[in-house]
Amino acid sequence: MRAEIIAVGTELLIGHVLNSNAQYLSEELNALGVSVLYHTVVGDNPERIQDALAIASSRADLIITTGGLGPTSDDLTHESIAAYLKSELVIDEQQRKIIETKFAGNSVPHINYKQAGVLAGARVIANPIGTAIGMLLELKAGIATSRGTLSQDLVLMSFPGVPIEMKEMFQETSVPYLREALVARGNEGVIISRKVLMAGITESRMAQIIHDSGSKMFEKSNPSVAPYATLGECYLRITVQAKNDHAANNMIQIAQLEIDGLLGDYIFGYDDDTIPAVLARELRKRNLYIAFAESCTGGLLSKLMTDVPGASNYTKLNLVTYSNESKMQMLAVKSETLKQYGAVSEEVAVEMVRGLAAISGAQLNVSVTGIAGPDGSEHNKPIGTIHVAILMPDGSLHTENLYWSWSARILSREQVRELAAKKICYKIYKLLRC
Amino acid sequence: MRAEIIAVGTELLIGHVLNSNAQYLSEELNALGVSVLYHTVVGDNPERIQDALAIASSRADLIITTGGLGPTSDDLTHESIAAYLKSELVIDEQQRKIIETKFAGNSVPHINYKQAGVLAGARVIANPIGTAIGMLLELKAGIATSRGTLSQDLVLMSFPGVPIEMKEMFQETSVPYLREALVARGNEGVIISRKVLMAGITESRMAQIIHDSGSKMFEKSNPSVAPYATLGECYLRITVQAKNDHAANNMIQIAQLEIDGLLGDYIFGYDDDTIPAVLARELRKRNLYIAFAESCTGGLLSKLMTDVPGASNYTKLNLVTYSNESKMQMLAVKSETLKQYGAVSEEVAVEMVRGLAAISGAQLNVSVTGIAGPDGSEHNKPIGTIHVAILMPDGSLHTENLYWSWSARILSREQVRELAAKKICYKIYKLLRC
Repeated sequence: MRAEIIAVGTELLIGHVLNSNAQYLSEELNALGVSVLYHTVVGDNPERIQDALAIASSRADLIITTGGLGPTSDDLTHESIAAYLKSELVIDEQQRKIIETKFAGNSVPHINYKQAGVLAGARVIANPIGTAIGMLLELKAGIATSRGTLSQDLVLMSFPGVPIEMKEMFQETSVPYLREALVARGNEGVIISRKVLMAGITESRMAQIIHDSGSKMFEKSNPSVAPYATLGECYLRITVQAKNDHAANNMIQIAQLEIDGLLGDYIFGYDDDTIPAVLARELRKRNLYIAFAESCTGGLLSKLMTDVPGASNYTKLNLVTYSNESKMQMLAVKSETLKQYGAVSEEVAVEMVRGLAAISGAQLNVSVTGIAGPDGSEHNKPIGTIHVAILMPDGSLHTENLYWSWSARILSREQVRELAAKKICYKIYKLLRC
Repeated sequence: MRAEIIAVGTELLIGHVLNSNAQYLSEELNALGVSVLYHTVVGDNPERIQDALAIASSRADLIITTGGLGPTSDDLTHESIAAYLKSELVIDEQQRKIIETKFAGNSVPHINYKQAGVLAGARVIANPIGTAIGMLLELKAGIATSRGTLSQDLVLMSFPGVPIEMKEMFQETSVPYLREALVARGNEGVIISRKVLMAGITESRMAQIIHDSGSKMFEKSNPSVAPYATLGECYLRITVQAKNDHAANNMIQIAQLEIDGLLGDYIFGYDDDTIPAVLARELRKRNLYIAFAESCTGGLLSKLMTDVPGASNYTKLNLVTYSNESKMQMLAVKSETLKQYGAVSEEVAVEMVRGLAAISGAQLNVSVTGIAGPDGSEHNKPIGTIHVAILMPDGSLHTENLYWSWSARILSREQVRELAAKKICYKIYKLLRC
């Protein structure tokens, strides 16, 4: 099966909303063994939606639309699908009643009733949360559309744009449907991919190491291996297509072993691993608690480490000591040290971490003080100057200035903080595994 | 000008990466007065990239590509553009030298040299950060392509996929180019939009209030008004097209006044405002410091409030007291209270906030304790149970259980925490403005 995802919504075309639905659906479809060949975004315009449906019908046999199913008059996806298929939406009495029960005694806003409209021959995709139902249509080659006749058989599914609704509906209705359809077609096999995640190396250096080893992995198509870079990280994606999960996993495993051999020093995890999550795993393995005293990162490190479920196994207490006052009061930083070196200094970071260790009850203590911008740069201390002190369980102290020269000009405050947090977590991870 | 953005990259089609570049470019292009009609995502496949270029050429006169300019062999955007235009890439000696200087004495990975390839007649879009340069091509109707002759004049620009590089290059090269081009075409005018941001109301209730008022704002096309919902918020987007900024702003202003009159109670801000940012503004206006003692949100509230530049004007100290131990030690929560009511209780939230007020040096103190999931639900305390206590500058105490019944089933741990943090900030904002 070859899929195209059409997201409908002017809010996407003016940049007010990110197309996260396409990402989610792509990941899910690939895991099922459906190749996604195109994403399209089109505005809330019936003619252009029909054009997009026609183009997709010519190059995909599974079309999934998201968005444009709301109650308001600019939500026109189902109306446009109806026009494309030269058919009409009819109010479904059962759906109408379901909408009424969803308002649980409150009067139903009149405009919500149009959401009960369904096309003849469509299966309803129930919405367990909101009032926007979806449709599943099986269309045969040769039927007439507003843009000519269909050249091939086609499955068309529509979902609302609200991510939590779309995800629930996709899982409950589409996943079992697609599984069955793929088996009926003789099981086209599975496509599996794995990300090999690295830090402390650039994308081109990573590619060069592979190239210099004489490996031909970039030239192969199955498994295929491709390199990518993100803020502070890079990764190789291995993708394989095989008859079944077992065969696919074997192929992935072989490719991964080759990468592990070449780049093992930089690899911190796979797939959905994050640097905070692998650090959390190392802490739990060693029964260690970690504590942070944050200044410039303002709670981000604490937030990232507690994003991981089960954080209470390694987190007791973290402090955000943003002011000089709170650094002195909570962490016993000396006022002379602040005066002599400034709050953003190695000396203050060290006093912070020692003060933290005295109260945190954790074996591993970390402090951060820096300038995240956009204001606050001082003489000799440009934006991006970030001092870290790490006090390890064995009593050893590690300090570092994370300053990276290009940060001030091109990174936002949020990116400076995110990059700093990643680098700090990675540094602790590496120290733990030394 | 009518634009289409083509993002090239298999990583987008398998869902490993979000197409944030399309969002950024859409926002920037609309602000310049260029309508974005379509986004397309296509894989690293020369034939399909050429197909996508052909479709875009038929419906847009500005095509912007992102991605596929890396040094590795799966980066094929420039090669595909060359094939589409029946032309060839030639190594540009100047670009070759620039690449060498970027490696600053380190040996240049051999694969990077292909990034100096440029098409005849193309203007180079310099990359101030990385080694992937872009191209700007002005193409005339009638020229031959691999997919037939061009039906209209066209501007084609290519950018790398790394967001920070793309943004810098777009701002430095494309923005001045497009400004000039739009003036030369008789200045097609500007498109401006404004978001009116609300909380504490659903999207359909918001639409219904407007409908019931007899307003026709949803039916007009200029200004157009459209409703949207996001996690814990909803908004109306006003869009106008006019000769110049002054006229456009006037039209926006009139539409906004009508909305303010109907929905003022729910409006917390406009455009890029966030609930934490408007709360920060209220705090600064009143010269107030705020302090948080967080349990389940684990630093997220602190992180959100310090995302706002100038946070040192209202932040001194925040605590993440994740364990019972730290709640007792830092906030003087009594062990009997923890035993009798459990850590997730109104009683513990109240003791936390009083303990915080005693040490924070802030006039406004807030505590949160709850169950973010996916584990940890207790008898009578399902996931999503979140107790908040707010101690206002006048000494008044407000407590609330944020529990919302559908959260456990459909929201992730991260979403429970995000929604809780937004609701808490909004609650404090409303209390301050009472």
